[in-house]
Amino acid sequence: MNKRMVFYMVGRILKLEAALLLLPLFCAIFYGEYKGFLSFLATIAIALIVGFGLTIFNKPKDKTFFAKEGFAIVALSWIVVSVIGSLPFVISREIPSFVDSFFETVSGFTTTGATILKNVEAMSKGMLFWRSFTHWIGGMGVLVLFMALLPSESGRNIHIMRAEMPGPIVGKLVPRIRTTAKILYLIYIAMTLIEIILLLAGGMPLFDSLMHSFGTAGTGGFGIKNDSIGGYSPYIQWVITIFMILFGVNFNLYYLLLLKRVKAVFKSEELWAYLGVIAASVLIITFNIFPQYQSISESLRHSAFQVSSIISTTGFSTTDFNTWPNISKLILFLLMFIGACAGSTGGGIKVSRVVLLFKQMRSSLKHMLHPRSVEAVRFEGKKIESSTITNITTYFALFFACFTVIFIILCVADPFDLVTNSSAVAACINNVGPGFSLVGPLSSYADFSGISKFALSAGMLLGRLEILPMILLFAPSAWIKTKKSKGI
Amino acid sequence: MNKRMVFYMVGRILKLEAALLLLPLFCAIFYGEYKGFLSFLATIAIALIVGFGLTIFNKPKDKTFFAKEGFAIVALSWIVVSVIGSLPFVISREIPSFVDSFFETVSGFTTTGATILKNVEAMSKGMLFWRSFTHWIGGMGVLVLFMALLPSESGRNIHIMRAEMPGPIVGKLVPRIRTTAKILYLIYIAMTLIEIILLLAGGMPLFDSLMHSFGTAGTGGFGIKNDSIGGYSPYIQWVITIFMILFGVNFNLYYLLLLKRVKAVFKSEELWAYLGVIAASVLIITFNIFPQYQSISESLRHSAFQVSSIISTTGFSTTDFNTWPNISKLILFLLMFIGACAGSTGGGIKVSRVVLLFKQMRSSLKHMLHPRSVEAVRFEGKKIESSTITNITTYFALFFACFTVIFIILCVADPFDLVTNSSAVAACINNVGPGFSLVGPLSSYADFSGISKFALSAGMLLGRLEILPMILLFAPSAWIKTKKSKGI
Repeated sequence: MNKRMVFYMVGRILKLEAALLLLPLFCAIFYGEYKGFLSFLATIAIALIVGFGLTIFNKPKDKTFFAKEGFAIVALSWIVVSVIGSLPFVISREIPSFVDSFFETVSGFTTTGATILKNVEAMSKGMLFWRSFTHWIGGMGVLVLFMALLPSESGRNIHIMRAEMPGPIVGKLVPRIRTTAKILYLIYIAMTLIEIILLLAGGMPLFDSLMHSFGTAGTGGFGIKNDSIGGYSPYIQWVITIFMILFGVNFNLYYLLLLKRVKAVFKSEELWAYLGVIAASVLIITFNIFPQYQSISESLRHSAFQVSSIISTTGFSTTDFNTWPNISKLILFLLMFIGACAGSTGGGIKVSRVVLLFKQMRSSLKHMLHPRSVEAVRFEGKKIESSTITNITTYFALFFACFTVIFIILCVADPFDLVTNSSAVAACINNVGPGFSLVGPLSSYADFSGISKFALSAGMLLGRLEILPMILLFAPSAWIKTKKSKGI
Repeated sequence: MNKRMVFYMVGRILKLEAALLLLPLFCAIFYGEYKGFLSFLATIAIALIVGFGLTIFNKPKDKTFFAKEGFAIVALSWIVVSVIGSLPFVISREIPSFVDSFFETVSGFTTTGATILKNVEAMSKGMLFWRSFTHWIGGMGVLVLFMALLPSESGRNIHIMRAEMPGPIVGKLVPRIRTTAKILYLIYIAMTLIEIILLLAGGMPLFDSLMHSFGTAGTGGFGIKNDSIGGYSPYIQWVITIFMILFGVNFNLYYLLLLKRVKAVFKSEELWAYLGVIAASVLIITFNIFPQYQSISESLRHSAFQVSSIISTTGFSTTDFNTWPNISKLILFLLMFIGACAGSTGGGIKVSRVVLLFKQMRSSLKHMLHPRSVEAVRFEGKKIESSTITNITTYFALFFACFTVIFIILCVADPFDLVTNSSAVAACINNVGPGFSLVGPLSSYADFSGISKFALSAGMLLGRLEILPMILLFAPSAWIKTKKSKGI
């Protein structure tokens, strides 16, 4: 492991975070929030000191790195960026406890949207801005942003991209990684701007429009009102519904659209599976919850909003779905695990993985029936290699192992009921945000113990980075030079 | 698919069931139960009529069969044998509803031990005998018994053995399948006899000793008292504890012991993992439940009994573990899924599958760190082929898919809490028996709706036959001759 290079890169990311912190700083100035301004200023200073410390005193002679270093850079950066990112809340005393601030910041960067705030409306504007802005940064990825902005020094950035981008197969749009990162961010910025404009058109104030667009774009879900999106007009709710679905789509498809390769977009199996699951779920839930609402259009609106919010793993809400019938809740619980498309800003297991798993199951069954027939699993028109299938099934196993461990920690550390605990873990590891029972959309994670909050924060990071980088970061064999890994 | 051969084999199995029904018939005569005697007589008549009908009028010209037919024979036999096996309960009106009788019989043959009886002590001796005897038959397998008793006509019985014996890799002990089946049953009978003698030595009446030995040997769990084993002496409880552990061990190891290959037994990774999990669980639970009991020896006894009962998927109980702390309950819940060793009479996912999955995860992680290193997964001293790994991971996915579907059916059909529903599904699909909350060890499955009872029965069969045979039986492509399968 090229440790110097890992720490050097983390240092550079910290300098980028210092730059990004200027935005909430300006926001605090704009709203005349003196304490917030000082908190951001102090945090920027700390980020710069640590950042320059790591880059100046730690300059690597050898700048080459491989998959291992890529994973380590990504995992370590996300942890360090979250620690530094939580300082404004602590310094300003708006969230006095470090554990709570860390939970909130991890929840922001990982685009989970689970909050420990019981009264979000009491927060200052600057802090609200930073909180929602972490969603926007974390959505497309802080390291992808880094690659888009700064010239690469080693040309090995594909390893970073692979570690940070979600999905079973990470492709480059264009041969150059840096150009790919730039295209992705340009699409991201353009779509965010369109949503801001549409929300403004619906009469939403500028600040609210910005915050909600950040939350939608990153599929995060931090709101700025205690009832999330419930108090806004049906028009606003529909706009956010549509954009939650859009930000859950693989961004490669938008690039194909820009290239006018519409046919290729329509051939995407993942897109159709994603839209199909949404349509079916909305239909069932609309009829299931109809008795609770005034009209079919109202129950359709709430159903469509919640389904889109959960499958895209955003986590906004327009109503307390805790009061819905069991069947609707169960569908939402399953949607948490399916999650959004690969290559989107959403979390969860990803539609393509679920589709591939079903295809693999069918193929295995076929093979049992006709042992001599050999039929490869095909996806999006391509033959899928057996190593990809093994990776996906291993991912499932790892995912449920992580789920179980965190669930056990919660059960040991806190006295809450099993629905609260299991849905809290599901909502965090899938980066959704709100769960059921005591962690429903109108409640918060405030009452969990410190241990549980750390475990859930770890769950959010595991989910966002798709487990491997986090586990590898803490594997001793990644840091000790073994004979086998020499020179690799 | 050689349909004639499938039905022909089912017919022969039915004739075997008619012969096995003679035992409870004699028991009913012995205890002077006239109604019970008539019920068994009528059932034997029906089994013989259907059995001879299928063998005489359906004689196959071509007796060869392959994996496909093997799966179909096993799956169909288990369903038909359960339907016929439930008739004595219905005819005698001791369990008037057919759904309930079918549930109870499937629960018996699959060695689940989940009961719909609220007062088991009200049953006649003959019915209790048949109920426990189904455990003993189902434990080692009704088709394995068939192979042990009757000469093979096609020499293809390995396909049946593979479909009925649990575990990822089914090996023959000796080259001839029939001899393997005989050896397995002889070990099985010998161990059952030893348990009966040890229970008699503890002062348990003969009838009780027989019933509990049947229940232990098949890792079934049907008791004949309302408080299961709770009313018996500590000596009896310890004897049953030890035999539950023993019947959860791979029977191949006992064969190796007979051959005096003790070293080979001690090298079994699965055995050590199984014993290790038991030891660790007993230790934690003993201390966790200590405050609820008088002495450490009492809490150790209850802890050891329940851990052995759940991991071997037997399901006897000495105390209401529903009242235990959450951590203990959670450990028991996880043990349900791990289950016993492959090649034992126990259910669950099987220790070897869990071990292999962990090894595969570790190997995948290593491969991510050192992409150029190629290291095969090794188990029990052998290199495991990647196709076996794929089968295991597919099995996990299928298992949790089945779990989810049955869980959804229960949630839709019945208004019980999620702990009741999820633990009911887990207890049935893993062939354990009692769950938590409303399906705890002192309760029954009586209050579930008919739909849920059928779904849980399907779950028990899916779990006992390890999913594939049941799914293939209902796959249209298994029955329609396709171009690809021609001649296979």
